[in-house]
Parts: sequence; structure tokens; C-alpha cells
Amino acid sequence: MQPFALKAALDTVRATTPLVHNITNYVTVNDCANALLAIGASPIMSDEPNDVRDIQTICGGLVLNIGTLNQHTIEGMFAAGERAAELGHPIVLDPVGAGASTLRTTTAGDLLDKFPIAVIRGNMSEVKALAGGAASTRGVDVCPDDAVTEDNLAASAAFARDFAAQTGAVVAITGAIDIVADANRAFAIRNGSALMGRITGAGCMLTCICAAFAVANPDALLESQVAAVAAMGLAGQTAQGRMGGFDGNGSFRTYLLDILFNLTGDALEQGAKVEELAH
Amino acid sequence: MQPFALKAALDTVRATTPLVHNITNYVTVNDCANALLAIGASPIMSDEPNDVRDIQTICGGLVLNIGTLNQHTIEGMFAAGERAAELGHPIVLDPVGAGASTLRTTTAGDLLDKFPIAVIRGNMSEVKALAGGAASTRGVDVCPDDAVTEDNLAASAAFARDFAAQTGAVVAITGAIDIVADANRAFAIRNGSALMGRITGAGCMLTCICAAFAVANPDALLESQVAAVAAMGLAGQTAQGRMGGFDGNGSFRTYLLDILFNLTGDALEQGAKVEELAH
Amino acid sequence: MQPFALKAALDTVRATTPLVHNITNYVTVNDCANALLAIGASPIMSDEPNDVRDIQTICGGLVLNIGTLNQHTIEGMFAAGERAAELGHPIVLDPVGAGASTLRTTTAGDLLDKFPIAVIRGNMSEVKALAGGAASTRGVDVCPDDAVTEDNLAASAAFARDFAAQTGAVVAITGAIDIVADANRAFAIRNGSALMGRITGAGCMLTCICAAFAVANPDALLESQVAAVAAMGLAGQTAQGRMGGFDGNGSFRTYLLDILFNLTGDALEQGAKVEELAH
Repeated sequence: MQPFALKAALDTVRATTPLVHNITNYVTVNDCANALLAIGASPIMSDEPNDVRDIQTICGGLVLNIGTLNQHTIEGMFAAGERAAELGHPIVLDPVGAGASTLRTTTAGDLLDKFPIAVIRGNMSEVKALAGGAASTRGVDVCPDDAVTEDNLAASAAFARDFAAQTGAVVAITGAIDIVADANRAFAIRNGSALMGRITGAGCMLTCICAAFAVANPDALLESQVAAVAAMGLAGQTAQGRMGGFDGNGSFRTYLLDILFNLTGDALEQGAKVEELAH
Repeated sequence: MQPFALKAALDTVRATTPLVHNITNYVTVNDCANALLAIGASPIMSDEPNDVRDIQTICGGLVLNIGTLNQHTIEGMFAAGERAAELGHPIVLDPVGAGASTLRTTTAGDLLDKFPIAVIRGNMSEVKALAGGAASTRGVDVCPDDAVTEDNLAASAAFARDFAAQTGAVVAITGAIDIVADANRAFAIRNGSALMGRITGAGCMLTCICAAFAVANPDALLESQVAAVAAMGLAGQTAQGRMGGFDGNGSFRTYLLDILFNLTGDALEQGAKVEELAH
Repeated sequence: MQPFALKAALDTVRATTPLVHNITNYVTVNDCANALLAIGASPIMSDEPNDVRDIQTICGGLVLNIGTLNQHTIEGMFAAGERAAELGHPIVLDPVGAGASTLRTTTAGDLLDKFPIAVIRGNMSEVKALAGGAASTRGVDVCPDDAVTEDNLAASAAFARDFAAQTGAVVAITGAIDIVADANRAFAIRNGSALMGRITGAGCMLTCICAAFAVANPDALLESQVAAVAAMGLAGQTAQGRMGGFDGNGSFRTYLLDILFNLTGDALEQGAKVEELAH
């Protein structure tokens, strides 16, 4: 991937202020809104079935995050998804905790079956569970056995490409090494920080940012998702570099938002560690 | 308005620790609670219809914020509003996203029709939608066409006064220039910072602070709302002045709370840029 | 209590990363998740009745916090509690606002009656309300008449021991002086900071941390709860010491998480002010 695509993808987000409708969990929803604002997008949250069609209509895309789903928000997800599909808006699915409960696995699967999901963003355990694989789980954390490493990178990329081919979605699997793939191409991104697992919401925030990039870059969906994942990873890595001796996850969260807020297309281009993986 | 009224309004909040019952959206609810604590009030949140009458009974006022309403919280809003009205407690309405969906516009209108709302606090697009005007919308953001400017200030103030006369509420319209009006008088407040639009919750926090000021200053409702709006604007402006080169919206949010926490009546008196507008 | 028990209790949390299932209020849920991550545990939130049994099954313990309960989450609490009881997982109950409404008092009482609650963590007004005493209340704050002081310390400790004997739970009553007791022994902890009452969520975060300590230290429940309460108090006290002239409750919240994140067993051992109280 040419560096230019990363810069252009971010610059376009900032130039167009995409309006993103989020049905997401109540744990990290505030961080999600602030992350969207930091990256230059505009968030709106609505999960009431009677409200979501109108809200989706004025937005450019939809996030479906199953982190704290309940019967009512599930209904809202399907109503919003239907409207997004009618309008051709990109839908980004975050299967939080898929594999950890039947309801989560089933709901994520149903959403994927019913709607033309543009992007799936999760950790490897969640994406494997969604793909119908063995559902080892540590709740919302990746199961250590599932972590993407240099050793299993080629196989992981093949899995991502295959799942992309099967679903028609761009598949973004994040962890120590991130993979972003469509049916034909796969990229590894080696930014990030282990501290991102010591705050809640790093994954959820990224999912929302993926939606902003998808809305702003409709003609370059795969590249836009590589850019989104690299932007978040670079922000995490930079935030780690800013940590002083007294700092902990409270400060790390603040730094992460601050860096997303100030991230330029040029800085993303220079800092992103993106490699296209051979078949 | 005499500066003294601003200082007295804030000092009274800090001296009396008003207990404010909030039915508000789950996006910014944590910021709302911390903003109330920062300004010297005490927050309690409850939206369950079976709980809200008891909670409202022990509180001094009620915030109704429609940011993420659902069928269940709407029911809670009406139950709480009824109890607040019985007790003569001030109700502050924040019509978040009115104009963006039928449910939001209708619910805000129904609340306004049914209860003796003391204060309406929103951006101009939301307040216009509530007033039945043309519903241009950018979701929860003000539509650029609706922004209050020096050029349309007199007309905007007249609109605010008219809507106040029609509803019996103090109308607080916030943006680059804030307007606070009752049926007879209107004030412009020129504090604030554009960064307040780059965090989620600046408006929601202000709405809660408006409620705290209303509860603490029952005999000077209009003045108290000018003070609340000026306090938030001054905090935003001061927070912007504290921003360093690496800071973004993460730090801005923290600074905003910190400044509200430390804001004194004297500092408010000195920093507020309040002008009474002629008819 | 030997200092060693405090150090060991925290070290075991960090060594074992207990997975804690939280059904808690939407006001402070983000802080709860970050506090659990800071202390070395792993949070998962789920309140949907159809989801909670599966989630509880993969976790080690359960937090039931009634801060913003509604009919649906109450149902989720009972379903999760049943599963935790089947599995012998510790349940920690936080009766937020018990005494402030019939629904809260009744629900907390029903949970206590139905399940083998391991730990009750609240302020004195809430715990008194739960114990069926006079229900004076300041909403979610302690009523000044109920505050634990040096003058009423012995009587307060006797109350805590009696309530522990009656319920079978460890009782943790937090305030200016904290008390942790089982039926036989009671401890006073004199760490903490008045600033903990100027942020939302200090109590909720502690409740989650109590659960993490209970899960990690099944053979030393009382000691583990003394350690949890001392850890939070020490963090608050240290955070207060870090406050600069411009800092307010925004920064205090960040410092609190940072200090929890960096807190070592040795620092806890050295900083905790724990006294066993004679009968």
C-alpha cells in the first residue's frame, strides 16, 4: 500500500466530518464519542427501535457493537441495520465477547447474515467465534492461544482473507500484530502498545474510527481500514512513549485521545508500520 | 445584569449543595455527574419509572435530557416530571437531537407541553426544532445555518424571548455566542471555546449545571441561568488557554472539570462577558 | 492483621488476573472497568437476562451494583446471582442509594435474602438502610448523621460485626474512616481523601476492586477485603497529594486510576493504616 493512501484516508475524514451512528455498549460509549470527535468525525448514539431509522437516515454509516447488548438494543440494531442497508451506508460490526455467550455469538452471526457488513473489527478470539471456529474465550479479551504472532502470521492472514471472502466484509483483527484483509489482499500493521489492553475501550474506539474512515472513503474501503487501524495503533504507541513514571491507565487514556486529536495525515504516513502480506 | 448576581448565584450553589436528579443519556452521564460535583452540587441518576418518584422527592430539581431516550426512559421522564411538578421543583429540558428524529422532536415537545419546564437548554437547531421551526439538523450538532452570530444576534434574541414567552421557560441557547432569555429580557454571553464542540458532553454538562443553579437560586431564575451559562463558557475558555502543544480533547475535558471545580464567584464575576440586549 | 496479608492479597490479584462480571450502573461503569484493569483484574459487563448466565460461567465473581437499576437489569441481577451461587463464585453487593427509594431498598434486600452475598460494600447510610435501620439519606451520599467518626467507631464496628453475623457477608462500610468486618473481627482503615466524594464512582470502583480481591483470595476473604479497601484509600490519599493548584476532580480521577495502576504490594503494605478494633 502506498503511504499516500493512509494520509489521504485520514485527511478525508478530517475534511468531511462524517456523521457516524453508533449502537454500542454503555461501558465505553463516552470514549467512543470522544475518539470520533478526536479523529474529526461526529458521533450520534441511538438504540431505540423507534428512533434509529431516522437517525441512520441523517448519518453516513453505522456501528453495531454488541458489548452490552440486551433485547431492546438488539431490536434497535436490526432496525438500524435495515435502514443502513437500504441507504447503502457502511456498517461496521464489533463482535465484542463473541464466543463468551450464546447470545453474543448468535446475535453477531445473525447481524452478519442479514446485513451487508462492510467491516468486521474484533480480536482473533471474537472473529474466530464469529467464523464458527472453536470458541475459546477470555471474555472480552483475546484468548492467549488465539493471539496473532510472527509465527502464525501467514496462517492468520489466510484466515482473515478467507473470512473476508466468505462474508464480503473487510476483516480487521487487532492485537499485538493487527491484520486487515479483504478477499484478495492482507496487511499486517505493527504499531500499537500493550497498554491498549489495560484501558477499556481501545477496541471499541477503533471500531468507531473504522466506521468514520469507511464513510469518508467509500471508494477505498480496504485502504481506509488499514489507515484506521494504523492510526489507532500509532496513537497507542505514541501515548506509551509519553508515559511518565507516575502515569497509569488513567493518563494513557487521556494521551490516546489527545494524540488522535492531533494526528495528521503526514504523521500517520510516517509512523505507520504497514506491510502487505504475500499469499 | 449586576456582576453581583453572577457571584451570588455560584456562591449559593456551593453553599447549598443542591441535589439534582438526572434522567440523561448514557453517553455523557459520567461527565454530567462529575460536572455537578465540580460545581458544588450532588448528582443522582435514576430513570426506572418505579424509582423516579422516590428519587425526585428527595432532590431539588430534575434534568430531562433526551440524548439516548428509549421507551423505558421516556416513561421514567414522564413519571419524574409529574413528581417534580407536584413538588414545584425546577425541571430543565435538554432537547438533544430534536429535529434529527420524529421521536426526539415529539418527546421533547410532549415534555414541554405537559410540564412547567423552568429552563430549556440546547443549541439553536434543537431549540428551533422544539419551537416547531424548520428542522435543519446535523444530528446533535448545530446546523451551520442556525448558528448565532453578531449579524443575527438581535433576531436570535427576539426568537429566544418569544419562545420563552410562549413556554414560560427561561431559554438558554448555546453556541459561539450564547443567549439566555425570559419573556422580557435577553442576555448575550461571549465566553466559551470552539473546543467545547470537540468533546462530547459540553452541552449536557451545562444542562445539569443549569439545574443546580436553578435549584439553588429559586428567586432569581433568569440571573441564575445567565450565571450557569457564563460559568461553563468561562471554564471552556480558560481550559482552552491551558492547552499545551500535545493536548487534545482528552486533556481539554479534564481541564474543563478542573476549572469548574476551582471556579470561584469572584472569578466568574470578573471573567464573565455578559451583555443585556436591548429589545 | 499482618501487613503480609495485604501485600499477598494484592500480589495475588495481579498474578491471577481475575475475571469479574459486573452488573452496575451506567454512570460510573467506565471508571469501574478501568479501575479493575488498573488493579490487575479483567472486567466484563453484561446485564441482559439471556446473557448473564453464560458470562458468569466464564468469570470468577459477580458485582451487583444497584446504582441505576431498572426492571430489566434487576431481572439480570437475579439470573446472574443464581448462576454465581451455583458455581460458588463470590458476589459483592453495592446497595447504591438504598434508603433513597423503596425500589432500591427492596431490591438490595431481596438480593441479600436470596443469594449468599460474600461482601457488602456501601456507605453507612446505605448499609443501615439495608439492615432495616432508620433510612436517613442524601441520595447516594452518606447522611452526615451516619458518618463514622472516632467517637462512634466502636459502636459502628459493633454494628458492622452484627450485620456480618446476620448476613454471613463481610461488611465494608466506607467513609472518612472505613470499617471492614466479619462476624468476629472488625478493622478500621484510616487512608482515603475527602476528594473521593467529589468524583462520581469512587465507591463503585472500590466495589469492583473488592470483587477482584475476593475472587483472587478465596481462602482469606476478610483479609482480602481489608486489602481492597486500604488499596483504594491509599490511592485516594496519594492522589490528593499529587494535586496541583489548578487541579480539580477531573485530574483527581485520572490520578486515582494511575495510582491504582502502579500500586505495588509493598507500597500497600507500607501505606495502609489498618487497625484491628477490640470488641
